[in-house]
Amino acid sequence: MAENETAKIPKEYADDRVNDTKTRDVVVKMMKERGVELSDIAAITYGLQGKYIPGLSEKTCLEHVERVVMKREVQNAILTGLELDKLAESGAMSEPLRGMLLEDYGLYGVDEVLALAIVNVYGSIGFTNFGYVDKTKPGIIKKLDEIGKNTDQCHTFLDDIVGAIAAAAASSIAHRYAG
Amino acid sequence: MAENETAKIPKEYADDRVNDTKTRDVVVKMMKERGVELSDIAAITYGLQGKYIPGLSEKTCLEHVERVVMKREVQNAILTGLELDKLAESGAMSEPLRGMLLEDYGLYGVDEVLALAIVNVYGSIGFTNFGYVDKTKPGIIKKLDEIGKNTDQCHTFLDDIVGAIAAAAASSIAHRYAG
Amino acid sequence: MAENETAKIPKEYADDRVNDTKTRDVVVKMMKERGVELSDIAAITYGLQGKYIPGLSEKTCLEHVERVVMKREVQNAILTGLELDKLAESGAMSEPLRGMLLEDYGLYGVDEVLALAIVNVYGSIGFTNFGYVDKTKPGIIKKLDEIGKNTDQCHTFLDDIVGAIAAAAASSIAHRYAG
Amino acid sequence: MAENETAKIPKEYADDRVNDTKTRDVVVKMMKERGVELSDIAAITYGLQGKYIPGLSEKTCLEHVERVVMKREVQNAILTGLELDKLAESGAMSEPLRGMLLEDYGLYGVDEVLALAIVNVYGSIGFTNFGYVDKTKPGIIKKLDEIGKNTDQCHTFLDDIVGAIAAAAASSIAHRYAG
Repeated sequence: MAENETAKIPKEYADDRVNDTKTRDVVVKMMKERGVELSDIAAITYGLQGKYIPGLSEKTCLEHVERVVMKREVQNAILTGLELDKLAESGAMSEPLRGMLLEDYGLYGVDEVLALAIVNVYGSIGFTNFGYVDKTKPGIIKKLDEIGKNTDQCHTFLDDIVGAIAAAAASSIAHRYAG
Repeated sequence: MAENETAKIPKEYADDRVNDTKTRDVVVKMMKERGVELSDIAAITYGLQGKYIPGLSEKTCLEHVERVVMKREVQNAILTGLELDKLAESGAMSEPLRGMLLEDYGLYGVDEVLALAIVNVYGSIGFTNFGYVDKTKPGIIKKLDEIGKNTDQCHTFLDDIVGAIAAAAASSIAHRYAG
Repeated sequence: MAENETAKIPKEYADDRVNDTKTRDVVVKMMKERGVELSDIAAITYGLQGKYIPGLSEKTCLEHVERVVMKREVQNAILTGLELDKLAESGAMSEPLRGMLLEDYGLYGVDEVLALAIVNVYGSIGFTNFGYVDKTKPGIIKKLDEIGKNTDQCHTFLDDIVGAIAAAAASSIAHRYAG
Repeated sequence: MAENETAKIPKEYADDRVNDTKTRDVVVKMMKERGVELSDIAAITYGLQGKYIPGLSEKTCLEHVERVVMKREVQNAILTGLELDKLAESGAMSEPLRGMLLEDYGLYGVDEVLALAIVNVYGSIGFTNFGYVDKTKPGIIKKLDEIGKNTDQCHTFLDDIVGAIAAAAASSIAHRYAG
């Protein structure tokens, strides 16, 4: 394809084919109601990338977190995971699934599967960062984990989703700066 | 599958580390209540592998479908997907997720993500068969798809799960015979 | 994050963080030398999406194929897969891998694994289309398959890569038009 | 692992459909030639699981590492990854791929993609452990990383493969003991 033909791709969808601003507002509100601000996620991303990229700010990290939650693939994973956490709490969910989610059963891996779908949005280089934060539980992830263990709230999906968004934002930053 | 046929699967598989016979009974019953017998899935597997393996029977296909639904990873995906279908029907699920599932929204891909987790259990050679049956909708998949479109029932996850189990069983057979 | 802050993301990298035009030229040339034009891939994408989207042209399909091969994740998979095909032909590769690739061994799934990494770039909705074309072998895929079977050329990776790019472009189109 | 220890793995696993004892010997030898013993990998697995499972020994970890390298999916990933490392060293590989592998380029993710295929063999619960060891580089992984950076040897794939096998063995143990 000739260079000039590439240029013909209409500007209005150059950015937005896979993005959805309306659902973005829904998922951001949903995460807030569950105790997570995008700035909490940006802090984790900063923790992952700050030492590698001189001059990186938490504000820039937040911009990349914003991009991640604009993606439809990510939004669908968030909508589904948070719904499962909430339905487990409410009692609308049947057993044995409900019990698995309420205790964050170690051999249940669907939360990791959804998280990988989020991470994949910026490619395979994010797998490592996801695994690392899922294990070391920095910042809000630790807090969610403790609330999940000590209260009636269920954060089986939410903590993995937060880690996955943070890792995807770190990949987005890496593609921008290290490219 | 009749009880006495199940018993033919060698004991050592039943006791395998990643298998779970108790949850197997739960998920088999769950699928039956949603309109799917393991023999329906075995018929799809036979359709995929019959032409390549001389002398393959639907009974052997059924034995491999049985093995697939013994795996914990598969069981967790079934428990989660069918619960989501049912909660979408019942009205316990919130919007916009509920609407996406009830209409089987084309840009919602979490059903495919869960399906891949099932297929992966017997390795990457199953991706192709999963995609093929998901698109051509043989047997019970077609029936589930039509019921999903024309009634209040939601089969957004179930049809992908059925295709994924059929594809995983086909991989299991391929490893056994072509190895 | 406030709406006005989102707008602050610099224009120059709004499109290009994960894209790489220089390597694009390398991989396009590499595929051409192996017998594949981007227009061959666009024809497969058109076959997948033409019936669903009124007025879709092969030219538009080609534009979306162009976008797919701009992504670093895709380029890395192409560079790696085609190199493996070529090294198998040349004899520089050791056994037993070389034999597996030359005969396109049915239980070797690394080609599908690389293909999935390509498809993932536009999300999980592309899995189905990848599986379908990998099985039905439309257009250039059939031709590559036959050359692979009847000559000294090895196309074990190339045919999966072509199918994966076509499926990813179909997803890109779906996100644009069905959104 | 000594021959007589290998023999302790029950026969029924050795004959499993997805296992391959002959190729196992090939990949074990290949990893040894590249500087990795299965016991090095077992030590990482022990580091991951020792604190959670009272009485777990490195010998048991080694048995689970043995099981992982019996799987065809894993063997194919090892054969392919180590071949790529070796061909990058030898100069038989063309640019720009060769340069990417020799410098372990940060935006090249095919090594992670192959690693995930290995981890998947025991399900999604292993993603976290893989990411963690890939980032913290315990034991042999650190050593491989340093050799890769300071000599002509290329370990771009090997270090991820080692981490993935260790994580898969940890999953195998978790399924066995925590089930």
